[in-house]
Amino acid sequence: MAVNLRVPDPAELHPVAGVRIGTARAGIRKPGRRDLLVVEIAAGASAAGVFTRNRFCAAPVQVCREHLAGEGAAAIRALVVNTGCANAGTGQPGLADARATCRELAARLGCQPSQVLPFSTGVILEPLPMDRLVAGLAPAVADLAEARWADAAEAIMTTDTLPKAASRRATVAGATVTVTGIAKGAGMIRPNMATMLGFVATDAAVPAALLQRWVREAADASFNRITVDGDTSTNDSFVLVASGAGGLRVAAEDDAGAAALKAMIVEVARELAQAIVRDGEGATKFISVQVEAAATPAEAQAVAYAIAHSPLIKTAFFASDPNLGRILCAIGYAGIDDLDVDRVDLFLDDVPVATAGGRHPAYREEQGQRVMKQSEITVRVVLNRGSASTTVWTCDLSHDYVSINADYRS
Amino acid sequence: MAVNLRVPDPAELHPVAGVRIGTARAGIRKPGRRDLLVVEIAAGASAAGVFTRNRFCAAPVQVCREHLAGEGAAAIRALVVNTGCANAGTGQPGLADARATCRELAARLGCQPSQVLPFSTGVILEPLPMDRLVAGLAPAVADLAEARWADAAEAIMTTDTLPKAASRRATVAGATVTVTGIAKGAGMIRPNMATMLGFVATDAAVPAALLQRWVREAADASFNRITVDGDTSTNDSFVLVASGAGGLRVAAEDDAGAAALKAMIVEVARELAQAIVRDGEGATKFISVQVEAAATPAEAQAVAYAIAHSPLIKTAFFASDPNLGRILCAIGYAGIDDLDVDRVDLFLDDVPVATAGGRHPAYREEQGQRVMKQSEITVRVVLNRGSASTTVWTCDLSHDYVSINADYRS
Repeated sequence: MAVNLRVPDPAELHPVAGVRIGTARAGIRKPGRRDLLVVEIAAGASAAGVFTRNRFCAAPVQVCREHLAGEGAAAIRALVVNTGCANAGTGQPGLADARATCRELAARLGCQPSQVLPFSTGVILEPLPMDRLVAGLAPAVADLAEARWADAAEAIMTTDTLPKAASRRATVAGATVTVTGIAKGAGMIRPNMATMLGFVATDAAVPAALLQRWVREAADASFNRITVDGDTSTNDSFVLVASGAGGLRVAAEDDAGAAALKAMIVEVARELAQAIVRDGEGATKFISVQVEAAATPAEAQAVAYAIAHSPLIKTAFFASDPNLGRILCAIGYAGIDDLDVDRVDLFLDDVPVATAGGRHPAYREEQGQRVMKQSEITVRVVLNRGSASTTVWTCDLSHDYVSINADYRS
Repeated sequence: MAVNLRVPDPAELHPVAGVRIGTARAGIRKPGRRDLLVVEIAAGASAAGVFTRNRFCAAPVQVCREHLAGEGAAAIRALVVNTGCANAGTGQPGLADARATCRELAARLGCQPSQVLPFSTGVILEPLPMDRLVAGLAPAVADLAEARWADAAEAIMTTDTLPKAASRRATVAGATVTVTGIAKGAGMIRPNMATMLGFVATDAAVPAALLQRWVREAADASFNRITVDGDTSTNDSFVLVASGAGGLRVAAEDDAGAAALKAMIVEVARELAQAIVRDGEGATKFISVQVEAAATPAEAQAVAYAIAHSPLIKTAFFASDPNLGRILCAIGYAGIDDLDVDRVDLFLDDVPVATAGGRHPAYREEQGQRVMKQSEITVRVVLNRGSASTTVWTCDLSHDYVSINADYRS
């Protein structure tokens, strides 16, 4: 039951010149579903990625890091993604499987194994069924075409209830530019399915070094601002590809069109990140946690995450119960040692809830109740300590979250 | 549905000489239930406490800290506890209410307000109903007697399904020594009810400075090792009282009987802390997370809490699903930057689950399944980095957790 999210209309997902997509039903975990994705990228493209910081990172994440290092980022020719098995917690055999996957696809596309980025998502601690995966590569390659983004979004789903895709097309510095992306799961939503994957491509030409800076900035403004249950997965990956097959060429941050292109990329990444929260396991509400007037960005983030991670606050949202003392409690344990609680203001949407260390004199339970019943809610905390701010997106914690995670493997 | 926990037998709760207990039904939140506790302590006793680090700490916590400062710790004559309202997030009026509570009780007991320690537990952000609280003091004082520990355990309950008390009596250095205590809730289990409260008393004589060291050590070995949902409440308090009315007198850490007495205190505190987890909201399993061979105690603690806090691991325990990759995932994001995952060993009770970065070659799903079905489970992680270790206790995350926290106020 996703919150204000719908199946993407394939007609709204603009193809990206220089990027071809093919999918297959490889039966990796369950038969009959699209579970293998191949993305072929034209020669001359550049790529960049950010990956999980989890020390038990999956084998494909380790291989991605190797292949993107140094000159590799300007030579990537393909991505390959399987669902159903995370290839994480699989030791040296898992690493060999990830490398073999690259070799097998490279042979079919006529490139080097080091030009392939592999991704996996699914159960941790189980071996990748290589026979079925390899058998699926030929039909996926045979399927390659530019207008397949909707298939791609479907092929990377695990417990997602809806495919997630976003697309923008605009005229930038006189050229038509396209940015299209897909995402699945959420590292912090379903660490058993084990993965947040995000792929965004543009037909603009962007050098790899600049693209690497942008992928980090876009992640910080999108996928790094979401949480459902606070678990950081073993497989989280976000990759940005610039095919260079379109009309816009950008060489540096201050080139004509660079700012507009970056804004499009951030917008697509943010729409995808929010889609992940809207489709969070068991989610019935979409919550924006906005922290303002913090002394530092890190402090703003600490308070926002203390609120967004609290199971007590999330169950109260689920119940539409304006039990808002729980939010003060989370602000109090966020780790700001010299926080003066008498200066903290708390709002629920526009309703003032707390001030001067206690309940706002004008606050009435009915006002809180009214906001809590909405499907989209903003929690606003003003710390009155400085000028840093942040926003984090999360969802509520419902019975379905427990059901989904208790029963997933069975 | 508490895990292997029963109502304490009043006959097993040894009275502590110099400590008298009285309770009342003050109707603070709901009518007809025991919700007010007064503890009178003989002159000459010493007291010590540890309190929540939450910046939004409750008004009574602030007053306790003041009254225990300096010479105060050797002059405490009474404790007073109400349930139903946390008196937290209540600003200056809340502080005035906590001070007035001390004044009112002091007048009835013939001591100074600064000799009273106040405690509250219940909903945050609501004012304390002073009229009903004060009206309850007289019947509570009239009720004072030594053999009332079972009543005391009941009077401090909120969403606890069972009262929690523990008691030991032994001959130490030739004298009979008694240690008896009660606890409720858990800061990290029910931060809306908002409080873990623990009170332990002994009839031994212990100077306040030594008692302060012991209360910290006992907390670190007990209440600071439990978690249900990771929220640190506004009201957490653990107070240790040494009445000096018995036969044992201890002046320093290396005095005869000091080690034995401290061990009794730690044992009572640990039994109470574990009782809180056993009665955790919705708990169906009691989980010990044991981390060994860590480089530092902080590192051991970080790994233990990453596992004990993960909603995904806790739902898997609820479902008896040996989805153990989730545990590797939590170890991986616990923040040890130079962790070599190939050296980590994971056991479930005695079953080897993972080694060398992947599944243990001898592991079979049936073995994991068998352990997961038990009501008491030990997760053992061997990091092979050093000699530090720790144990943390937690419970599973069930449908009932969501129900209890979504519906509590209604």
